[in-house]
Amino acid sequence: MKVSIPKGMRDFSPEVMAKRNYIFDTVRKSFQLYGFEQIETPAMENRETLTGKYGDEGDSLIFNILKRGDKFASAILASRNLENNIRKPFGVGDKKDNKLDSDLTKLILEGLADGALRYDLTVPFARYVVQHQNEIAFPFKRYQIQPVWRADRPQKGRYREFYQCDADIIGSDSLLNEVELVKLFDEVLSNLGLKDFSIKLNNRKILSGIAEVIGRPEMIIPITVAIDKLEKIGLEKVNEELTQRGLVEEELEKIQPLFKIEGSNHEKLNQLSSFLADSEIGLKGIEETRFILNTVHSLGLKNADLEVDVTLARGLDYYTGAIFEVVSNEVKIGSICGGGRYADLTGIFGLPNMSGVGISFGADRIYDVMEELKLFPESANASTQVLFINFGEKEAAYCLGVLQKLRAEGIRTELYPDAAKMKKQMKYANDKQIPFVVMVGEDEMSSGQLSLKNMESGEQSKITVAELVSSFNL
Amino acid sequence: MKVSIPKGMRDFSPEVMAKRNYIFDTVRKSFQLYGFEQIETPAMENRETLTGKYGDEGDSLIFNILKRGDKFASAILASRNLENNIRKPFGVGDKKDNKLDSDLTKLILEGLADGALRYDLTVPFARYVVQHQNEIAFPFKRYQIQPVWRADRPQKGRYREFYQCDADIIGSDSLLNEVELVKLFDEVLSNLGLKDFSIKLNNRKILSGIAEVIGRPEMIIPITVAIDKLEKIGLEKVNEELTQRGLVEEELEKIQPLFKIEGSNHEKLNQLSSFLADSEIGLKGIEETRFILNTVHSLGLKNADLEVDVTLARGLDYYTGAIFEVVSNEVKIGSICGGGRYADLTGIFGLPNMSGVGISFGADRIYDVMEELKLFPESANASTQVLFINFGEKEAAYCLGVLQKLRAEGIRTELYPDAAKMKKQMKYANDKQIPFVVMVGEDEMSSGQLSLKNMESGEQSKITVAELVSSFNL
Repeated sequence: MKVSIPKGMRDFSPEVMAKRNYIFDTVRKSFQLYGFEQIETPAMENRETLTGKYGDEGDSLIFNILKRGDKFASAILASRNLENNIRKPFGVGDKKDNKLDSDLTKLILEGLADGALRYDLTVPFARYVVQHQNEIAFPFKRYQIQPVWRADRPQKGRYREFYQCDADIIGSDSLLNEVELVKLFDEVLSNLGLKDFSIKLNNRKILSGIAEVIGRPEMIIPITVAIDKLEKIGLEKVNEELTQRGLVEEELEKIQPLFKIEGSNHEKLNQLSSFLADSEIGLKGIEETRFILNTVHSLGLKNADLEVDVTLARGLDYYTGAIFEVVSNEVKIGSICGGGRYADLTGIFGLPNMSGVGISFGADRIYDVMEELKLFPESANASTQVLFINFGEKEAAYCLGVLQKLRAEGIRTELYPDAAKMKKQMKYANDKQIPFVVMVGEDEMSSGQLSLKNMESGEQSKITVAELVSSFNL
Repeated sequence: MKVSIPKGMRDFSPEVMAKRNYIFDTVRKSFQLYGFEQIETPAMENRETLTGKYGDEGDSLIFNILKRGDKFASAILASRNLENNIRKPFGVGDKKDNKLDSDLTKLILEGLADGALRYDLTVPFARYVVQHQNEIAFPFKRYQIQPVWRADRPQKGRYREFYQCDADIIGSDSLLNEVELVKLFDEVLSNLGLKDFSIKLNNRKILSGIAEVIGRPEMIIPITVAIDKLEKIGLEKVNEELTQRGLVEEELEKIQPLFKIEGSNHEKLNQLSSFLADSEIGLKGIEETRFILNTVHSLGLKNADLEVDVTLARGLDYYTGAIFEVVSNEVKIGSICGGGRYADLTGIFGLPNMSGVGISFGADRIYDVMEELKLFPESANASTQVLFINFGEKEAAYCLGVLQKLRAEGIRTELYPDAAKMKKQMKYANDKQIPFVVMVGEDEMSSGQLSLKNMESGEQSKITVAELVSSFNL
């Protein structure tokens, strides 16, 4: 019997769970503090809700659910008819290349699938908003903390099941929402103990402006992808790539001033203003960015550094305004949060012109950063605080009464269930990292003075139940 | 564009989520108080981990994940070969009955499936224990709160995705575990505000004893299923059913005293002792039940009524000792919790002789009971406490500064993001059930005296930020 779990999936041990809960609880509390309300959507969505939303590659990474029973049998039968109808039968005779016609494969897949696992929280959220539009108070500030599933090739730090923590506001164009979300990044990550991190800010309109100024508005995506690599591969290689992607000499010259932009946020925006002087949309992007910067600046941030980065391009496919990304400056692990403004998220489900802006916290990467910086507090541990040693039936009965008193005071405590050897019981306390052990024998029962052992210092003392309780309530 | 979710699945609105979280948080806190530690397992398990564990009907309700890409195409090709190899081709020509050979269908299904969604938390827990046996401190007290998926026919109160809240102790035979779990039922449900509920207690050994005394030990399951119906269908019909199931006159006579057992728990056990006098295993079951009753009795229960019920038979297939079930006496909705002892849960995964005992809280039914009894406290609401009305850019900027001060004090607050009409903003506060609204105009900004409106009473007053903060911290 092989005992394992599917690749890319994870079990979480009590120790890891306690730390994960510390992150989720902190995120949840901050979301609530900012007026966001929680929803949950089902793991499974109709296939047509998800397909076509994440590009071809995304579509291929969606986990599909198989039909069951009679529906499965019918779908298998139907797949045979499909082959015959489109006159492209395959099977034993096809051994030569052992491949299926891809359109036919897609059709067969459609027939066999009965729903799919959610791939992110944004599309289910859009579906939720459209489906429940008559019950929702707009602008709708919702948060959602749930796992998502992607059949990505498993690799270090990339899993097939992982939690997303999203906060979005839908139904408001106001830039105050962007301001609040920048503050929320700062709030959550500061509350988690991060001291040195940068919130990078860009705007899709600035990127559109750049492509416009060069005279190639249709090239916005390849241009952005190339300049996004500036820091990594250097100016020369970026220019090479832009040439490869089809920019001519004159266009390449036009873009050069962009690579020389530097200084403070406002210096950058001033240089960008000259660069984008002829692009209405570009100037609009600068204006929006200035408003966000100025308003956040007047409020102040706890620990975050807010930084304009015109090369930032994440999620370009659907963002239409502000684009956010957060990185730790202490642990180089890529972005730990992201987000942006989308002008029309629910249009795909028949409710047009609902502008929204949202952010997402990457729990796994935040976990890794916190682990490396040793930011998880002792109090994140929700394990037993006091273990009672079991010396036999009579002693155990006595201890159960004491347990009850401790629990009534909120102290996490347990009695070892068997009268096992002392060594075994102490090992249990050690393995479970229980800080205090209480021993109750004949003497203790008659005197009411329990023997308490501090497992860290090894110190032993006599203590009454009342004293024990008050030592925890200090 | 049809906007919907798969049948049997649910969206949870903010209002419902707040109440669900209240249940989960209360359960979690009590579990921790009793020394249980949380784990999480992936939504997806290998198919062989799940199949064969829930009976044929259970197996047919498991959701399977479809292979993707090349693996899917290969599996489709292989299914054609399968048909040829076992010489039972089907397809277009089979239209007559339009059915597939069921063995062949199963084989095709196996080929197409790539993992399956967990059906409960017990089997993944057993798999977890075996896989991580070298990292675990036994006896292992774990809790787990996660959704499970079953392709049951959707009906009122039965869903295809629902949360289970399980606490189990594995690796200890001690009956003190049963005692602790009875106390835990009482703790959790009392903390949730339930006042009148019964914990029903039985023992598989008593049921074995009954079948033994009648002389038909192999008939334990049909006998138990029949006597389980006593309350519902009455004595006469139970006897009819027992006859139908093959009990002869003499055997039927032998079982009659069982139906006359009544009185207090101890009276019942005394009568049962005479009835089971010749069954060693039956007497052992009585002894265990007495121990649990006596120990719980000496500790006392907050609100629960602990009641011996020899007709209780849930999960008979795998329970080997104590069997628990909890019902509300105020809302008739079936069992809201259950559990029991299993002598060997991990044997199926190659780790034999690990005795365990566990309980499960049915969050959906507990929710319905609490809703009907109006037990959710005001404080379960995690929604915004104060909304700031947006009168324009300057006023909004001022309000953002005040928000920041309130949030630093843990007060959940938000600013309406747009300078919309007053009526619209007030409607938002009403819809979101926000109890206080603050209005800041020219006057307020110059005096520092904010206008506060109590949305319930309609009362309006002037208040400083400091006064506002302290009114919430009272």
